[in-house]
Amino acid sequence: MTVSVAVAGASGYAGGEVLRLLLGHPEVEIGALTAGSNAGERLGSLQPHLLPLADRVLVDTTVETLAGHDVVFLGLPHGQSAAIARALGEDTVVIDCGADFRLTDPGEWAAFYGGEHAGSWPYGLPELPGQRELLRGARRIAVPGCYPTVSTLAIVPAIAAGLVEPDVTVVAASGTSGAGKAAKPHLLGSEVMGNASAYGVGGTHRHTPEIVQNLSGVHGSPVRVGFTPLLVPMSRGILATVQAPLLDGVTAAGVRDAYAAAYADEPFVHLLPEGQWPQTQSVLGSNAVQVQVAVDERVRRLVAVAVVDNLAKGTAGAAVQCMNLALGLDEATGLSTIGLAP
Amino acid sequence: MTVSVAVAGASGYAGGEVLRLLLGHPEVEIGALTAGSNAGERLGSLQPHLLPLADRVLVDTTVETLAGHDVVFLGLPHGQSAAIARALGEDTVVIDCGADFRLTDPGEWAAFYGGEHAGSWPYGLPELPGQRELLRGARRIAVPGCYPTVSTLAIVPAIAAGLVEPDVTVVAASGTSGAGKAAKPHLLGSEVMGNASAYGVGGTHRHTPEIVQNLSGVHGSPVRVGFTPLLVPMSRGILATVQAPLLDGVTAAGVRDAYAAAYADEPFVHLLPEGQWPQTQSVLGSNAVQVQVAVDERVRRLVAVAVVDNLAKGTAGAAVQCMNLALGLDEATGLSTIGLAP
Amino acid sequence: MTVSVAVAGASGYAGGEVLRLLLGHPEVEIGALTAGSNAGERLGSLQPHLLPLADRVLVDTTVETLAGHDVVFLGLPHGQSAAIARALGEDTVVIDCGADFRLTDPGEWAAFYGGEHAGSWPYGLPELPGQRELLRGARRIAVPGCYPTVSTLAIVPAIAAGLVEPDVTVVAASGTSGAGKAAKPHLLGSEVMGNASAYGVGGTHRHTPEIVQNLSGVHGSPVRVGFTPLLVPMSRGILATVQAPLLDGVTAAGVRDAYAAAYADEPFVHLLPEGQWPQTQSVLGSNAVQVQVAVDERVRRLVAVAVVDNLAKGTAGAAVQCMNLALGLDEATGLSTIGLAP
Amino acid sequence: MTVSVAVAGASGYAGGEVLRLLLGHPEVEIGALTAGSNAGERLGSLQPHLLPLADRVLVDTTVETLAGHDVVFLGLPHGQSAAIARALGEDTVVIDCGADFRLTDPGEWAAFYGGEHAGSWPYGLPELPGQRELLRGARRIAVPGCYPTVSTLAIVPAIAAGLVEPDVTVVAASGTSGAGKAAKPHLLGSEVMGNASAYGVGGTHRHTPEIVQNLSGVHGSPVRVGFTPLLVPMSRGILATVQAPLLDGVTAAGVRDAYAAAYADEPFVHLLPEGQWPQTQSVLGSNAVQVQVAVDERVRRLVAVAVVDNLAKGTAGAAVQCMNLALGLDEATGLSTIGLAP
Repeated sequence: MTVSVAVAGASGYAGGEVLRLLLGHPEVEIGALTAGSNAGERLGSLQPHLLPLADRVLVDTTVETLAGHDVVFLGLPHGQSAAIARALGEDTVVIDCGADFRLTDPGEWAAFYGGEHAGSWPYGLPELPGQRELLRGARRIAVPGCYPTVSTLAIVPAIAAGLVEPDVTVVAASGTSGAGKAAKPHLLGSEVMGNASAYGVGGTHRHTPEIVQNLSGVHGSPVRVGFTPLLVPMSRGILATVQAPLLDGVTAAGVRDAYAAAYADEPFVHLLPEGQWPQTQSVLGSNAVQVQVAVDERVRRLVAVAVVDNLAKGTAGAAVQCMNLALGLDEATGLSTIGLAP
Repeated sequence: MTVSVAVAGASGYAGGEVLRLLLGHPEVEIGALTAGSNAGERLGSLQPHLLPLADRVLVDTTVETLAGHDVVFLGLPHGQSAAIARALGEDTVVIDCGADFRLTDPGEWAAFYGGEHAGSWPYGLPELPGQRELLRGARRIAVPGCYPTVSTLAIVPAIAAGLVEPDVTVVAASGTSGAGKAAKPHLLGSEVMGNASAYGVGGTHRHTPEIVQNLSGVHGSPVRVGFTPLLVPMSRGILATVQAPLLDGVTAAGVRDAYAAAYADEPFVHLLPEGQWPQTQSVLGSNAVQVQVAVDERVRRLVAVAVVDNLAKGTAGAAVQCMNLALGLDEATGLSTIGLAP
Repeated sequence: MTVSVAVAGASGYAGGEVLRLLLGHPEVEIGALTAGSNAGERLGSLQPHLLPLADRVLVDTTVETLAGHDVVFLGLPHGQSAAIARALGEDTVVIDCGADFRLTDPGEWAAFYGGEHAGSWPYGLPELPGQRELLRGARRIAVPGCYPTVSTLAIVPAIAAGLVEPDVTVVAASGTSGAGKAAKPHLLGSEVMGNASAYGVGGTHRHTPEIVQNLSGVHGSPVRVGFTPLLVPMSRGILATVQAPLLDGVTAAGVRDAYAAAYADEPFVHLLPEGQWPQTQSVLGSNAVQVQVAVDERVRRLVAVAVVDNLAKGTAGAAVQCMNLALGLDEATGLSTIGLAP
Repeated sequence: MTVSVAVAGASGYAGGEVLRLLLGHPEVEIGALTAGSNAGERLGSLQPHLLPLADRVLVDTTVETLAGHDVVFLGLPHGQSAAIARALGEDTVVIDCGADFRLTDPGEWAAFYGGEHAGSWPYGLPELPGQRELLRGARRIAVPGCYPTVSTLAIVPAIAAGLVEPDVTVVAASGTSGAGKAAKPHLLGSEVMGNASAYGVGGTHRHTPEIVQNLSGVHGSPVRVGFTPLLVPMSRGILATVQAPLLDGVTAAGVRDAYAAAYADEPFVHLLPEGQWPQTQSVLGSNAVQVQVAVDERVRRLVAVAVVDNLAKGTAGAAVQCMNLALGLDEATGLSTIGLAP
C-alpha cells in the first residue's frame, strides 16, 4: 500500500513533526506541503532538520492544494479546519491536529474557545477504553491536545477501576514547543531559559474541558478536574503529576495491578517498574508514554506521574497512530517507543 | 557594628551563596572559611564567582577554626551540626542551613531522616505568624528547607484566615542546585538538560514533615500535606503550585484580601497584581518571594503559586535575614528584592 | 551627592539592566522611565524582577520626559539617539548604550550600519590604554558593544606589548539576551534551547569594525580582525576565544607577564591563576571580566579566553562605570565583581 | 542477512546510542550487552529511553560474553580495547568507539595519551578521500573522535582542493554528553546550565593530533592545527568554526564549488544553500553533518562552520555506518539524515 499524504501547516511545529514521522513511515508518499505566510519558501529554510525534504517548496493552504490525497493532516490555528474538511471528499482521511473537533459539548467549546462549535470528530486517543474501535476506518479524526493525552493516560486506569474519587488534580510541566512557533516575547529563549512559570491558572486553560470529557466519559458521570500548566526550560516534553483521593480500602498493590492490567497490551503506554520514575528525556521523539504510580498513605491520595513528548505522542505521533488505524495498518507502523537521550 | 562571621561548608552551594550575600552586607567581616575534603584549596578555584575572596584558603571544619566569631553559618551535611553547635559558646550566633534542628517531633525526624533527633532550634521563617519575635536575639537558628519556605508562604495566609480545608497539595518544580554539589550521575548536565522528572513521589521527601509542621502550627491542628517535588532544567529557583479545597462561601476577593493583608508589611514576600503570574527568573539571586492566587470555581479549590530562589531566600538569604534579626539589625540589611533577569 | 537619572528604553534588556544596577547605586535617584510602544504600562509587568520599581509607569520617550535629569541613559534602537542627545543640554551626561556614536570612521559606519554617520563620542571602555582620562568629566559617552568589550580586553595586552602579529581571530559564543527583547522566531526558546548556531559569519557582524577600531588604535596601525559570533543556549554571558600568531621569541611567561601588568590595577578585569579557565557563570550580573591566556607552541599562537556578562559589563555595567567617571565618583560605585553562580 | 551484534559498555552514552541506532537497523539482532560496574542491572534502569530493551540484563565485559557475535562494538574507556580485540576472532568485526586505535603515530599517542601505543586500525571516516574503500570488508575499525569528525569535514574540501594555507584554527562548541556519563562536579547540571567555558586550551586536547593526522594525510604534508574546545549548555551537538588563510586568487565561488563537488555524492554530509547557517538542533539524533562556508574578504580567510551530533555521526552513527561498510551493506542502512527539532 502506498498512501498519498498532504500536510497543511508544514512550517509549524506540529506539521514539522508529522513530516518527521512520515519520512520514516514505509507506506506513505508525501505530497503537498502547505503553509500560510510561509508559502513559496523552501522547506529547508524553515525545517532544516528535515533534510530529505529540504528542496520541497511550500504552497498555499487551500482546498485545491490539499485535495486528491488519501490522507490530509491539518496543523492549523483553531477555527480554520472546518471549512477545509467540509470541502475535502468524504473518503479522504482528515486528521486535525488542532482543537476544533475535540469537544463534544458546544457549551464547553463556547466557554473556553468562544465562537461557534464546529462539531466533534472521533477522538484520537486509542488508549481510552473502547476508543480504538471508533478510530478503525474513521475518515475524520480529532487529535487530542498534548496535556489531555498525558493527563488522561496518567489517571484513567484508576478512574476506570473505581479506585479514586472523581476529583482529579493535574499539575503539568511542559516544554515550550507546545506554544507553537509564533514569535511572542514571553517565549523568547532569554525569557524561558533558567525560568519556570505558571500560566492559565485557576482552571482557565483550554485543555481543561478536554480532560474532563475524557475522564467523565470513562467514569460515566462528571469528574472534577483542576488543571495547572507550568512552562519549564526545555523545548519538548510534558511531565504530568495527576492526583486523586483514594477510596477506602484501596491499596498500593491494587493500584499497581489496575495500571498493569490497563496497559499490558498497549503498544505505547508503559508502566515503569516500581521505584523508577518517569523523565521526559526518555520519550523525546518517541510515541511512548511512561507512567508510574504511588500511593501517599498519609493523605490517602493516588499520585500518578506520566511523561510524553508533546509534539510526538502528544500531537503528531498520535496523528500518525490514528492514520494507521484509519487505514487498517498496524497501529505502530512508522512509530517508535525509543527516545532520544541524553 | 562589625560582626565577624565564619562559614562552614564554604565550598558548597549553600556556603557559597551565604558568602555572596555577606560580601554585600555592610556590617560583616568575613572570617574563617571551612570545608571538608576541599580544605587547603583556594576559594577562587571552587567558587570562581566570588572574586573578592578568590585568594582565601579553605581550612578544616573544626570547632577551633569556627570558634571566636560572632556568627557561624553551618552549611554541612545533616548530622554534623549538633556537635559543632554544642562546642561553640552560647553567645555565638549559630545558624544552621541544614536540616538537623528544623523538626520538633522526634518521631517525624526518625521517620524521614533516621537516627537520633538532635533537637529543635527557633525556626528561621520570620514570615510565619508570631515567628519573627522568636528570632530576634536568638543564638541558635534552624534555616528552613527550600521547598518548605516557598510552599508554606504560598498557602499560609489561607490557612491562617480559615479559608481552606486543612488538606494541602504541593507540586513544586525545582532547579538542580537544591541537590547540592556532590557529583551524582542523574544530576549531570547531560541528564538534566532538556529533561523534567519527578522524585520523592508519594510523600517520601524529607521536606514533607516540615511543611506539615509549619501549616499545622498555624492551623492549630494537623494539616494534611501531599508533596511532590519535580526536577526541571535550570540551576536555581523553585516554583510551587499549592492547592487546597475552599470552604463554603469563600470568594476570590476574600482570598485576595487575606493574602494582601498577610503580606502587606513583609519586606520580602510580594503578592503580584491580579493577572500576573510568578516566574522564577524574577527572584534569582534575590530574597524575594513572589506569590499569586487564583480560585478555580469549577472545583472550588484555591490555587496559589509562589517562586523563590532556593539558594537565596530558600537557604542563604533566609540565613542572613535571620542573622540580622538575631543581631538586632534591620531585617533587610544586605538583602535585596531585585532579581537577575533575563 | 544625589544624581537624578532617566532611562530611555526602560522596558528592554539594556534598560532593565541599567535600572537593576542603579537600584544598588548609593548616589542615584531614579527619575523618568521611558519606552516606545510600552509607554503607559507598569514597569512591574515588563520587568517583574525589579520589584522596588514595580509600580512606576513608563512614559513616552521624548526630549521633554528626559530633560531635567543630571544623567540620561539611552537604550534605544540605533538611529534614535542623535536627535535626543542634541536636544538635551550640554551639561546633561548622556550615555548611549546603542551603536550610534561608537565608530569614528564614517566609511565603516556606512559599510556596516548604512545611512548617515551621527558622529562619535568618547568610547566607554576605560580599560583601553589612555581611555579612562577621556571619560572623566565627559558629557557624552558611547557604551561599547558587548562583543567588542570582551574581545578587545582579551587581546589588547598582547597588542599593546607587541607580542603578536596584528592578525586577530575572534570566535565568541553568546547568550541570547544580546539579541534583545523583540520577538523573532529564531530566538524562541524552542529554537535556542539544545541548539548552537553561527551567524554573521564572514566578517559581516556590525561589531567587527568596532573591534578593529579598538585594536588598531592601540597598535597604531591597522589590525586585521576576523570575527565569528555564535549563539548558544543561555540567556546571558559571552565567552570569547581570541587568537593571534605569536611573534618570534615571545614566551608563555612573557605573555603572562604582559597580561598581569596590564590588568594589575584594573578594578574589573581579572587574570585568572594559571590552569583555571574562565566560565560565563562566574560573571553573571557582575561587572567583572575574567581572562586567561595560553600559548599553543605547536602553532605558535596566543589563545586568550575572556568572559563577560553581555548585559552587565557588556552594556549596562559599562554604562554605570562610565557615569561614575563622568561624575567624578569612584569608578566602581554601585558595581560588583561578584557573579551569581551556580 | 541477520547480523548478531554485541555492545560493550552498554550503560554509557556511546553504547546507549549504538543501541538506539541498532534498534532501527533491519539486519541486526542485538546480542550481549555488557558493562563494568553496572553489570547485573536491567538496561531499563540505566537507559530508560530504550524501551524495547528495558528488560535486558547487563553482563560483565569479558571476552567470553562478547565472543560469538558477528559484530562487537566497544564503548570502553581508552586502554581497554586492545586486549579484548586480540582475543576475539579475526572474522569478528570489531568497531572501537574509543581512542586506542585512531592515531598512527606512536609519538603523538605518547604525547597526548601516555603509555604504550596499541597500534592503529582503519579509520572510520568514510568521507575522507580514499577512506571508504579501506573500510569495505574491514574487520577492525577505529571510530573517529567527535571533534575530529566535524572539524575535518568542515575544512577538508578546502585542503584537498588546495585553496588554503595549511594553517587551520578550530574553535568547537560542544554539548556535555561528549564528556561521558561519569559523575564529575564540573559536569553537574547546576554547573553547566547557563554557562559556557573553555577547556583544553592551547593545543592540549587529545583530539588535536587526530585532526592533524586527518588533514595532513589529505594535504600530503603537515597541516598546523590549533584547536580550542568549548563546553556549552546543551546535551548533544557540536558546532565547529574552522578557519584558514585563503591562498591568493581563491574566490568565494571557487570555495563553494569545491565544497559542492566534494560532498555532492556523500549521503550524510550536506552543504547548505547560501545564506543558511548550520545549527546543531538540525542534526540531533541523525547521522547528518551540515556545512556552510564563507569567505571573509577583509582578512582573506575561509570560515567554515559544521554541525554534528557528537553521539550520533560523531560516535555511534559513524560506528554503524562503518559496520555497514564492513559487512557490505548499503552504507546508510539504519541511519537517517533527519534531526529531532525543535
